[in-house]
Amino acid sequence: MKFPQSVSVVEVGPRDGFQMEVNFIPTETKIELINALIRTGIQRIEVTSFISPKAIPQMRDAAEVVAGLDHPQDVRIEALVPNPRGAENAVRAGVNEMRIFVSASESHNWSNVNRTIEESLVGFKDVMKIANEANIPVGGDVAVAFGCPFEGNVPVEQVGRIVDRLLELGIREVTLGDTTGMATPPLVRERCEYLLRSHPVLELGLHFHNTRGIGLVNVYEGLRMGITTFESSVAGLGGCPFAPGATGNVCTEDLVYLLHELGIDTGIDLEALIKVAKKVEETLGRPLPGQVMKAGLRLDLHPCTKEERR
Amino acid sequence: MKFPQSVSVVEVGPRDGFQMEVNFIPTETKIELINALIRTGIQRIEVTSFISPKAIPQMRDAAEVVAGLDHPQDVRIEALVPNPRGAENAVRAGVNEMRIFVSASESHNWSNVNRTIEESLVGFKDVMKIANEANIPVGGDVAVAFGCPFEGNVPVEQVGRIVDRLLELGIREVTLGDTTGMATPPLVRERCEYLLRSHPVLELGLHFHNTRGIGLVNVYEGLRMGITTFESSVAGLGGCPFAPGATGNVCTEDLVYLLHELGIDTGIDLEALIKVAKKVEETLGRPLPGQVMKAGLRLDLHPCTKEERR
Repeated sequence: MKFPQSVSVVEVGPRDGFQMEVNFIPTETKIELINALIRTGIQRIEVTSFISPKAIPQMRDAAEVVAGLDHPQDVRIEALVPNPRGAENAVRAGVNEMRIFVSASESHNWSNVNRTIEESLVGFKDVMKIANEANIPVGGDVAVAFGCPFEGNVPVEQVGRIVDRLLELGIREVTLGDTTGMATPPLVRERCEYLLRSHPVLELGLHFHNTRGIGLVNVYEGLRMGITTFESSVAGLGGCPFAPGATGNVCTEDLVYLLHELGIDTGIDLEALIKVAKKVEETLGRPLPGQVMKAGLRLDLHPCTKEERR
Repeated sequence: MKFPQSVSVVEVGPRDGFQMEVNFIPTETKIELINALIRTGIQRIEVTSFISPKAIPQMRDAAEVVAGLDHPQDVRIEALVPNPRGAENAVRAGVNEMRIFVSASESHNWSNVNRTIEESLVGFKDVMKIANEANIPVGGDVAVAFGCPFEGNVPVEQVGRIVDRLLELGIREVTLGDTTGMATPPLVRERCEYLLRSHPVLELGLHFHNTRGIGLVNVYEGLRMGITTFESSVAGLGGCPFAPGATGNVCTEDLVYLLHELGIDTGIDLEALIKVAKKVEETLGRPLPGQVMKAGLRLDLHPCTKEERR
């Protein structure tokens, strides 16, 4: 088994998970949880979205959240920016990296941002200008890159064309998002092989959902393809808008557990991370999908009560 | 990616899942659900356990359950038998296969059946005699084969010694049980390589739990090792006695979904299976861990409501 020696885990729960919460999570609570995540050794955290408060009220405290973080030099505080205004606000707030996003299918892009894919891509030029002037790197996220819930299969060439355009904008890292859990190991292999072959300078990341139970199998196939950047969500925060009760993002503790069991370094203290996951569950007041936080590590042993009867 | 062309899925929910239910499931309900499972095309089902009603009251209707099944010739009705009395009852009931079980660690075997491993193995001789006289095949299940919740790691040689003894009894198929979800891909690889090399006539099956979220990753590694027999539980029935809220057996629909997406034949109608899973959830009256039954198949598309606004 040949795997990468180390993997960069990008925590997206505070953005991708919290944004789905109906009740506003107090800014102080968000800051506390993100600071606790930083202390586990996670080096990249997508902390918020500089989006219109009308679109996502939960993210209306984006600047305050960033201002409240105590982050060491080696941690990258990332934020989603949908447009130039968001980029300006992100620069002012002092993020380390911006993420722009576009869907791989027209209908999903339209549903998400009321724009065609072309309109999104053209719009990114102004974002890039703002980021470049502020000397802040930008990463790109391609949503529904493994299939679209409205259109079905998405041709790999279509994903390739969008990646082309993102690279032309000056972006180095592009993450393929499995927005509604339609990725499968053969699709992971096809997309990684195609993109890595056709885009030699591309830094490719993967963001899977566990909607159909195979999120970590897709990670495993990604590792076998040499991918070293995976996004995930603490406690498995986030869900699937189309399937009540279905899980969303791959869970960070479960991902880190798998990586460590494969002998892959993450720099993350898994026991500390489990504690944060439990705190997140407590904060939201309902069970979250993370498994390792419920079961503990594999060598957390139990007393053998019956043996004593002998 | 090289995978087996077809895989035999062994449904164990009616035995391994139901036995953990506190409230007695009416015999008629059990029969209805198992008959529905048979109609999905599943060819092997562990339907019950011929165990003392004092030990597991839920299984007190073992003979009636078997009698109530309408099963085509090509379906194997399997049952767990802990001892010669159970074997006699299983023969009388007319099962197609018996399963005997022993743990790979002393403390787990003691906790489970109040016997040493040696006592269990010696006891199986009488079970084999009864089975042979009735011309019924016997399979062996090795519990905690990837780690013991009381002792921790279990050496592969210890598993090998138990497999030796089971083969000496005349058993051909042995299934390694990941009783509390301690298996990892490197352990799957190590155990499969060791056992297949040292036991050329062995038919090796795998039974994983999803306790720590990586059950299907372990299946995936097993497939890569050429394993073609996997046990699982409809709707993800069953749990982990040590971790409230943690999942137990790998879920059959999720397993079949993965296998089909890998192009592996199972002979199972996944859509019909999802319907049975939902019925099981309804019967037990609480959410069960299966993901595909909540999210649907990957090409179950959704209407794009926002697009119409354009």
